[in-house]
Amino acid sequence: MKKIKLDIVGLSYSQTQSGAYALVLGEVGGNRRLPVIIGGFEAQSIAVEIEKMTPSRPLTHDLFKSFAETFKIKLEEVLIYNLVDGIFFAKLICTDGTQTSEIDARTSDAVALAVRFECPIYTYDFIMNTAGIVIEGNDFAFLENIENVGSYKQSESSPEEKEQEPVEKEPEKNKPSPYASLTLEQLEKTLEKAIENEQYETAAKIRDEIEKRKS
Amino acid sequence: MKKIKLDIVGLSYSQTQSGAYALVLGEVGGNRRLPVIIGGFEAQSIAVEIEKMTPSRPLTHDLFKSFAETFKIKLEEVLIYNLVDGIFFAKLICTDGTQTSEIDARTSDAVALAVRFECPIYTYDFIMNTAGIVIEGNDFAFLENIENVGSYKQSESSPEEKEQEPVEKEPEKNKPSPYASLTLEQLEKTLEKAIENEQYETAAKIRDEIEKRKS
Repeated sequence: MKKIKLDIVGLSYSQTQSGAYALVLGEVGGNRRLPVIIGGFEAQSIAVEIEKMTPSRPLTHDLFKSFAETFKIKLEEVLIYNLVDGIFFAKLICTDGTQTSEIDARTSDAVALAVRFECPIYTYDFIMNTAGIVIEGNDFAFLENIENVGSYKQSESSPEEKEQEPVEKEPEKNKPSPYASLTLEQLEKTLEKAIENEQYETAAKIRDEIEKRKS
Repeated sequence: MKKIKLDIVGLSYSQTQSGAYALVLGEVGGNRRLPVIIGGFEAQSIAVEIEKMTPSRPLTHDLFKSFAETFKIKLEEVLIYNLVDGIFFAKLICTDGTQTSEIDARTSDAVALAVRFECPIYTYDFIMNTAGIVIEGNDFAFLENIENVGSYKQSESSPEEKEQEPVEKEPEKNKPSPYASLTLEQLEKTLEKAIENEQYETAAKIRDEIEKRKS
């Protein structure tokens, strides 16, 4: 299957799901975006690494990296290989030089490790076709959004800090969609608007609702 | 240095620090307890494993374990080897059968992995002497407290859920102690009371204040 390379283009606090973050992966050389809803802890871990902050004590993903390096194991690639009921499935492709293995992981963990090992993130075309959102031109949400998450480490009061439920464990479909009442046409209009306003996480939810109608 | 074996005797929501948990380690065959303040994410990860819950997708520490097992690396021992400014330092002692290595870790991560690898947790006598709390008889806080943390995964409303700041990164000393105003004698009385009531996390804070006075 054709693999598509992704990089991180945004990370922002979820407007609709308390404590959740929208991690936005972008198709390299393309204009499709893949929004993934992740938990606060994983979002923070990704942001801390992207911003090259060094916590006084190693975060769990930092520990993972030093563990792997100690035993000379490399993370070569992260592959987001499936999407079931709105949950993305990822795997780590690792090697110790002789043995190459694939290890099942949540997308948030996989990305938090990819940024630490500086390894590429891939997905399949069918996933971009199902869950990808096409945008026109560049979005400048990246830096600003990373800032959001980075800074939520320091301040005691910001809403970003409240809760750390592992969101990926709760399929969106289990929650009534706020868009259930809209017609398909209305949904598509709302989706366009959401994308214009770089509200990728909202767009993701509308996209899921549209998918549900079509299937 | 003489090593002391520890097991987990309690895990409860912190009364004094939002989003933090008190992980209570107990001396095997002894009556000393070691309270360690940890973050919500790590507390949840420990509780999920102790309660043998199986999340639909692997938590970060589950991923760590499957990664280690894939490359036939065992976690043989966790050692809490130092205590600086109220922060415990732990290391993972791992082996691939030929090479044995020590890897620096936060105590919370180390314990979350120890329960998964079913490996022993040790500390040194000097740490028990500095930070240990002597209790008379058994405490039955264990099960009930683990329940607390286990259940905080499900309910949306419980205070336990709010925030997931990596607490170990914030030394207690940076925060004004609520006990600063008490005399040493008063502190020791308050400590006794806290232990009687199994308020280990409060006891830990009083203990730290007493240590500060003495040093």
